[in-house]
Order: sequence, then C-alpha cells, then structure tokens
Amino acid sequence: MQITFLGTSSGVPTRSRNVSGVAVRLPQRAEFWLFDCGEGTQHQILRSDLKISQLSRIFITHMHGDHIFGLMGLLASCGLAGNTERIDIYGPPGLNEYLQACRRYSQTHFSYPVAVHENRGGLIYEDEEYRVHCGLLEHRVTAFGYRIEEKDRPGRFDAQKAKAFGIPFGPLYGKLKRGETLTLPDGRRVRGADFCAEPEVGRKIAYCTDTIFCEGAVELARDADVLIHEATFSHRDAQLAIDRLHSTSTMAAQVALAAGVKQLVMTHFSPRYAPGNAIQLDDLEAEARAIFPKTAMARDFWSYEVPRRRSSASETAIAP
Amino acid sequence: MQITFLGTSSGVPTRSRNVSGVAVRLPQRAEFWLFDCGEGTQHQILRSDLKISQLSRIFITHMHGDHIFGLMGLLASCGLAGNTERIDIYGPPGLNEYLQACRRYSQTHFSYPVAVHENRGGLIYEDEEYRVHCGLLEHRVTAFGYRIEEKDRPGRFDAQKAKAFGIPFGPLYGKLKRGETLTLPDGRRVRGADFCAEPEVGRKIAYCTDTIFCEGAVELARDADVLIHEATFSHRDAQLAIDRLHSTSTMAAQVALAAGVKQLVMTHFSPRYAPGNAIQLDDLEAEARAIFPKTAMARDFWSYEVPRRRSSASETAIAP
Repeated sequence: MQITFLGTSSGVPTRSRNVSGVAVRLPQRAEFWLFDCGEGTQHQILRSDLKISQLSRIFITHMHGDHIFGLMGLLASCGLAGNTERIDIYGPPGLNEYLQACRRYSQTHFSYPVAVHENRGGLIYEDEEYRVHCGLLEHRVTAFGYRIEEKDRPGRFDAQKAKAFGIPFGPLYGKLKRGETLTLPDGRRVRGADFCAEPEVGRKIAYCTDTIFCEGAVELARDADVLIHEATFSHRDAQLAIDRLHSTSTMAAQVALAAGVKQLVMTHFSPRYAPGNAIQLDDLEAEARAIFPKTAMARDFWSYEVPRRRSSASETAIAP
Repeated sequence: MQITFLGTSSGVPTRSRNVSGVAVRLPQRAEFWLFDCGEGTQHQILRSDLKISQLSRIFITHMHGDHIFGLMGLLASCGLAGNTERIDIYGPPGLNEYLQACRRYSQTHFSYPVAVHENRGGLIYEDEEYRVHCGLLEHRVTAFGYRIEEKDRPGRFDAQKAKAFGIPFGPLYGKLKRGETLTLPDGRRVRGADFCAEPEVGRKIAYCTDTIFCEGAVELARDADVLIHEATFSHRDAQLAIDRLHSTSTMAAQVALAAGVKQLVMTHFSPRYAPGNAIQLDDLEAEARAIFPKTAMARDFWSYEVPRRRSSASETAIAP
C-alpha cells in the first residue's frame, strides 16, 4: 500500500500545495483509491505517476468545497479518457444529490457506471483483501474519517521445502498452503504451518480530516500503521482551531498517541504558515513531535510506502 | 487591454494546457475580467501575474464542465482571500441555479456580493469605458460568444500648446478638451480639435467558443482587433467537428476572414494532437494561415497586449 499526497493545503490552493486529495495505491492490483477530491485533483494525478484509468473508488470525508470541487471534473475526465470500469464513490448524505445537480446543469454524461454510496458509519466496503470502515468526526458539517484495513495474508508456501520432504506435487500443496494438516500417502502426518512462512499482518491506514480532536478519530486510528490527520493550525493558534472545529498539530499528535499508531502524517495545513508568518510549518512539526515523535509532514506528490509490521523499515524515521 | 490565456485545451486538461479560461486585463483600472472558468483556473491565476483580488467580472460561454467546473472554487477562494468587492457573473440560463445548488450542497457562503446575470443576447454590460455584447453561437448546448469593446477616447489635450496660444488657464481648458469651439475674451475663435491629439480608437476583442462555424461568430467578431476563436480540430478531422459542433482550424480562419479582424488567436485544442499523432498543432496553425495569415496559436500563460489601431505594432506578426 502506497500513499501519495495530491493536496496538502486547507481551504485554498497555494503555489506549492493543492487542496485535499490522497491516493492509496493497492499493491496487488492495478488500482488506486482516492480520499477527497478538491479542485485540481485530476491535474495533480496527471502530474504524478498515478494512472487515472486505475481509479476505482473515491471516499469523500465531507461536503466542503476544498474536498469535493474536483470530483465532477475528475469523473468527466475519466469518461473522456475512455474508462469503462465502474467507479464507486462513498461519502456523506447530500453527495449523490450534489453530483446529480452538477451532472444535470453541465449535461455531463458518464460513459461508465458510477455508484454513489452515502455513509451511515461502520463497515462500508469489503472484499477478499481489504475492508474499509468509516466513522463520524467532529467538524462544522457532517464529516467522516476512514480506516482502510488490509486483511492478514497466509505466509508464503515453501514449495522447495515440501518437495525436499518428499510430498508429491499436486492438490496436497494447495491444502498445505491453506494451513491444513494432512496424512501423506506414506502415512506421515504434516502440518501446513510447517511449510508456510509467518502470516503477513495486514496494514491499516486511518484518514481523519476535517475534525477537531475527537474520540471518533482515535477509534478509527486504533493501532493503525499510519494515521493521516489534519493539522490545520499551530498549537499557538488553538483558538482558531476551536472556533472552526479544525485540529492543531498537538491535537493530531494526541490522537496518534491515544490510538497507539506507528506513524502520524499531518496534512491540511493553513496557507497562513507561509514565509513572513512568525509561525512556520516546521513549528507545527516540532509541536507534534514533542507529543508523538514519529510524526511526518505531508507534501504534495510525496509517496509513502506503508511498511509491513515485521519490516525493520517501520522502525526508522521517515520524511517526505 | 491585455489578454492572458489561462487554459487552452478542450475537454480535459493536459500536462501543459488547462481547460478553458481567458483573462482580459483592463489598462486604466486595477481590474481583470475572466472568460470561462474551467477546473483549475484559480490555480492558473495563482501561477500567473494576475491578482485574484482584481477579478471583477466573469463571462461564461456555456455550461459544459470544462468551462464552469472552476467557478465555485474560484469564487470560494475570492472570499477566503478577503475580497469584499462585488463580482458580476454573466452566462447562459441555468448558471444561477447551478451556482445556487453548488453553494447549498457545499455550504459555501461568499463574504462579498455575487450577482449572476443570465444572458439573453445583445448588450449585457456598459460603463464609461467599455461595452460588452453577447450573441448566440452554434454548439450542442446554448453557447454565447462575447464582444468586448473599448470606447473611443478623445485625443490627449495639449495644455502646453493652449498656454502658448495665450488661452487663460481655467474652465476654458475643459471645454477645449471636450472638443468645443470657443470665443476667447480677446475675441479670437478657437477649436478644441486643434489642441487635442487624434482620438484613440477603442479596441475590440471577440471571444467565440464553443461553436462550429456560424454567422453569430462572424457578427461578434466584425472588425475586431483580436478574435479568439476555438479550433478544437484539424481540418483533416472536420467530420469530428461537424459531429460535435466544434470548429476546425479552417473554420476559425474563415470566421476571421469574413469578419475582417486584425488578428486571429486560436485556442481550445483537442488533446489528441499530442506527440505521436500524425497531425500536430503546427498543422492546425498552417491550415488556418493558408486562409488567414495573421493567425496565432494560444498557449497557457501567454499574455498578449492588444495593439492600438494607429500603432505600427499591430502590423507585425505575433507569436506566443
């Protein structure tokens, strides 16, 4: 699972940061999922190494413009790019009516199926490899966070070892792969586990924006490998965060700490922290690291491969 | 009057060309007008030397997504950038309802007045210096072209000459400036025209997109200094233009020729003419120039100062 940040500014785009959009590339499939779709997300995809034709699911957190105004353009372009595969869109109530209104006024006809699912919370998607939950956050409008879980995978079957053990090639291999215990034609008993590597623990990503510190975010992020959390404001501008129901850097870090995540990545930064302001984005990073050291700051086009739990890479610091 | 092209691709953005948007900067005012507003237009403004706070009027040709999907984001950003001046928006029927729906679903509140005017054709705007007409084009949906006219200005009053002639400084200067004929206190008769430079002829810009060749475009472009006309397709792809009610390069040139314009600038190019296609944009240029030699191809961020009629600059070829 590889996360690519397409937009890391809040509210308005800047010269170097677009409004919200995060792609999650799925390793085993030629497929990516998109979280939020601010204006210009399709332009960012064009400038990244993502292929627009591989977009299969879009998850919208809430209906503010900086999270949805790129949706219609992206969907229209998917059609013009010749997509024929269905795109599933998940989001808050009102999303379907909004898209229908835009399609009607702009006379946009999609040449491929688009299915809109309005969230009610809980498990919203599941297949053989992945599961997606959503949960309420705390913002000025209804906002959902998402938790993407990769399911655990059985460890790699060691065919070499099975062969050396004298197990005849064929359907027995499949049974051992699935972890079954067998009696061989010569009477020996063998356990599948002895021929498989350790199971691969599935990775978990939580995406929480826009929100002030809330229990909902902690629940979604519980034990996650990566928590992507908004940090619109510096701790020194906490009153702004409270007034607007956004997070400070320290709130994001507190969610990460309370949830016991492996890595926090902060995003959705206020454009106010530009050169000239006494507070800079480095300050937000330092504020968060004082609470949760494994904090990184997202940047547009930064791609981050979520490390596997057993991998030593997960123990090293990362920086975009 | 300076024209800046913000988007010159049709339908979808490419890496080097955004979807439709053209800014016209007014020389005497700290103000610019925008024609069409495809997704990402606000991003292009950010990357140009235009100031978003100087945007005062937006003219929309038709309701297709590549001409309107940037509107809500731009208007929302104007508010967040602290604009307080009114923005007037002109466009086809349906534009107001579209904007209202987007505002409602996204809960976007503008902190400044926005007035939407739905076109019925003819004169749609006039002030002391400018006039804007719109007229119907021929496309798959209702589409309007625009004609922006700078009014003629009286020539510069030569106060030096009046003084040398012994005319007493005071209200008489104002009368001469306005071209009146006066009797001086000493009995001499003087004509204002003798103390003023030649009047400055106002410049005229026509903006015609999206459309197939039509008389409406010729009327709007009559004697214009610059005609901006779409040229989605090469002449060799004329059947596509006919099917989709777009123009070929040669249709754009024929409008320019029939209208007797001084300069044609083509835009709204199909992304199909990319490296690898047997037809390239150079071919579209050559096709048009065979009919109308004073043809230029627009590029994103190209700024073109419309020359005054009496200026020798208007006689030289231009290239972005």
